[in-house]
Amino acid sequence: MTDYRRLRVALLGAGAVGSQVARLLLKHSGELADRAGATLELAGIAVRNLDAPREGDLPRELFTTDAESLIVGADIVIELMGGIEPARTYLLQAINSGADVVTANKALLATHGPEIFDAADQVGAEVYYEAAAAGAIPIIRPLRDSLAGDRVQRIMGIVNGTTNYILDRMDTEGAEFADVLADAQRLGYAEADPTADVEGFDAAQKAAILASLAFHTTVPLESVHREGITSIDKTMMDAARHAGYVVKLLAVCERLGDESEESISVRVYPALVDRSHPLASVHGANNAVFVQAEAAGNLMFYGAGAGGVQTASAVLGDVVSAARRHIAGGVGVGESTLANLPIVDIGRVTTRYQITVEVDDRPGVLATVAGTLSDGRVSIATLEQTVAGEDAATARLVIGTHKALEQDLSETVERLAASGVVERVVSVLRVEGD
Amino acid sequence: MTDYRRLRVALLGAGAVGSQVARLLLKHSGELADRAGATLELAGIAVRNLDAPREGDLPRELFTTDAESLIVGADIVIELMGGIEPARTYLLQAINSGADVVTANKALLATHGPEIFDAADQVGAEVYYEAAAAGAIPIIRPLRDSLAGDRVQRIMGIVNGTTNYILDRMDTEGAEFADVLADAQRLGYAEADPTADVEGFDAAQKAAILASLAFHTTVPLESVHREGITSIDKTMMDAARHAGYVVKLLAVCERLGDESEESISVRVYPALVDRSHPLASVHGANNAVFVQAEAAGNLMFYGAGAGGVQTASAVLGDVVSAARRHIAGGVGVGESTLANLPIVDIGRVTTRYQITVEVDDRPGVLATVAGTLSDGRVSIATLEQTVAGEDAATARLVIGTHKALEQDLSETVERLAASGVVERVVSVLRVEGD
Repeated sequence: MTDYRRLRVALLGAGAVGSQVARLLLKHSGELADRAGATLELAGIAVRNLDAPREGDLPRELFTTDAESLIVGADIVIELMGGIEPARTYLLQAINSGADVVTANKALLATHGPEIFDAADQVGAEVYYEAAAAGAIPIIRPLRDSLAGDRVQRIMGIVNGTTNYILDRMDTEGAEFADVLADAQRLGYAEADPTADVEGFDAAQKAAILASLAFHTTVPLESVHREGITSIDKTMMDAARHAGYVVKLLAVCERLGDESEESISVRVYPALVDRSHPLASVHGANNAVFVQAEAAGNLMFYGAGAGGVQTASAVLGDVVSAARRHIAGGVGVGESTLANLPIVDIGRVTTRYQITVEVDDRPGVLATVAGTLSDGRVSIATLEQTVAGEDAATARLVIGTHKALEQDLSETVERLAASGVVERVVSVLRVEGD
Repeated sequence: MTDYRRLRVALLGAGAVGSQVARLLLKHSGELADRAGATLELAGIAVRNLDAPREGDLPRELFTTDAESLIVGADIVIELMGGIEPARTYLLQAINSGADVVTANKALLATHGPEIFDAADQVGAEVYYEAAAAGAIPIIRPLRDSLAGDRVQRIMGIVNGTTNYILDRMDTEGAEFADVLADAQRLGYAEADPTADVEGFDAAQKAAILASLAFHTTVPLESVHREGITSIDKTMMDAARHAGYVVKLLAVCERLGDESEESISVRVYPALVDRSHPLASVHGANNAVFVQAEAAGNLMFYGAGAGGVQTASAVLGDVVSAARRHIAGGVGVGESTLANLPIVDIGRVTTRYQITVEVDDRPGVLATVAGTLSDGRVSIATLEQTVAGEDAATARLVIGTHKALEQDLSETVERLAASGVVERVVSVLRVEGD
């Protein structure tokens, strides 16, 4: 056995991820020491309640309710408590007492990232957060380091496992949203309060983190346009399938404009993806991040986006990196937000759309619809008309558009709805993946 | 503009990758400086022949035939010449003169890796080689850093674009190997001498690099079992498709045994992959590396495995990393070969197999075949009998086995061939991806 320097590791939180991190730190201590060049000594695990039931059989003496004492004197602090406070206070305390920190806390980074990274810069500490972007999928180092010499043009990520599980089952089984959600809750794929997942809040946090990494710029969470999947129903899934698409909740981070006047757009919404696109094959609760870069072309990173032991893998990779740097110095994952790119409103984004409307089935209707679109600078690429139901007086139009400006599109849809020939706007979905 | 320290970058080689690296270094110098924290000054480009035709319009004054003078005084040396010599001599010279080095030279690393990494260790230099493992796909940092706290169990990689292009077209078009190869050569997907690709030499070099990274151990190129795709024909592709498989040339790096007595296997061969496996969807000249890790579960990294500008992206990422480390110190990508795992012979590997034989169509034959397999410790999972052709006296048996030891399997196939009832062993293919 090599005689390594000992580094004291403080763990904050012992939930699904934290308990796995502690277990693996203890189980693989020899291997981890060889890789880190330092013995990683788990100094303690801070929890709120010592008597709460715990997974696994971690030594009782490691647990403490005194997080602050644990942080003092730690070389590396792992924050897996989640939520904003007291996680934020503890992370700042750890940084200011000279520790490098590892966190999987996407909510905290998406809202208080600049404060935390600035605090680390002040004292020369590093913040590692691989597990905060796409669970177990290694994406931080590829974006920050491997692609550091390239220019990322666009990221399309399936970054929320719960919604992908729901949409995938709706697609494959023809089931309704509410039924699949109830099932997902029963199976533990969705929380009792599913809002953070199904309304896109979790994906928006990850989108903010991915965009800031990819474009080397600061992306405040409130600049991320966000729509959830609660309005997606069986009819929309069927129409998508019929047109060769699948519905996915996407986090899209896009560079716009030319190099002299660049901006970015960051948005989360359910979108239609061509079934031949690699993202269409991402099933169940899996995640994937599809990256388009100027030189590298198309890349995709696929894996488990959540899960205690899977996420623990990403956390432990960060712990090894933090330990190496704690010993050898140098830069860590690092932040670079020098680009300072403006972030545009969703109205300034262009995508393709699929518009489904029910119209009166009488002469002249199609001309009115086509004219309204044309007047609104929305160009028709495909059009399919079917009978809407038993009522033969109504027809359904599914219109695929060429790329159009979101603002033009939404104004045009409003005019369509008020045109007198459209009975109902069934759905308006963006098409991503060109 | 921030006033950065200047780092002198020497480029050796101006082929498809080198010319793109030079172009992007010049084009994106401002952005690269922000990300590296240093101005990357392209000091010169060493070539063999100043008068050779060059892609792009790089300034003539950058070119030189005097590589040694260029290397002296360079902070970062990028080696993109390929081949063993003089690349090896130049890389060692660069390391010994205090430069950090970046290389895409898989042949050199797979044969002289330990010599080069040792030389770098001696002087505290770093060797970066993201482009040597899977072209533009970021795989080095994920394996070395992101998964440093995990245990990789198996890697299955499609790491050669030429063979994937050929096999994909054979699969989708029902074409024969020779015809697709000729077409691939015409289109520039395959070299005039395709040996390195179609015989698996290129994939074997990458397998050695990936295995040494994943298992933190030294993997000599000669320990990699290697078979090419030249024996794959239309009949085998059809049989694979019929059974729900696709044929892929895989680089398989596998951890064997339990933790008390571990070993690894590294092998390259055409294998059957279930069509529902993520690797089955890797089409054309694309590459993908599928990683199974103890904690992280299944991950996949997908992208362009070759191409000048795509590979240049990986090289430039390394250049930025090298520059950051040159300024700030600390560890680079690093090597850790402390595990020293034994590498087993192909005979000690277990996989599933698909055995196709032509047999006499008479009573008792099936019993003889089944008995021979059973005696050889090869257990039958599936069996399908069809008439082999117009000659109704011959039947074709397609036997899917449970997992069996390669040595048992090959001895059993020999006994089958000599059993008197088997007219011809049509094919024996391994099935990967469980």
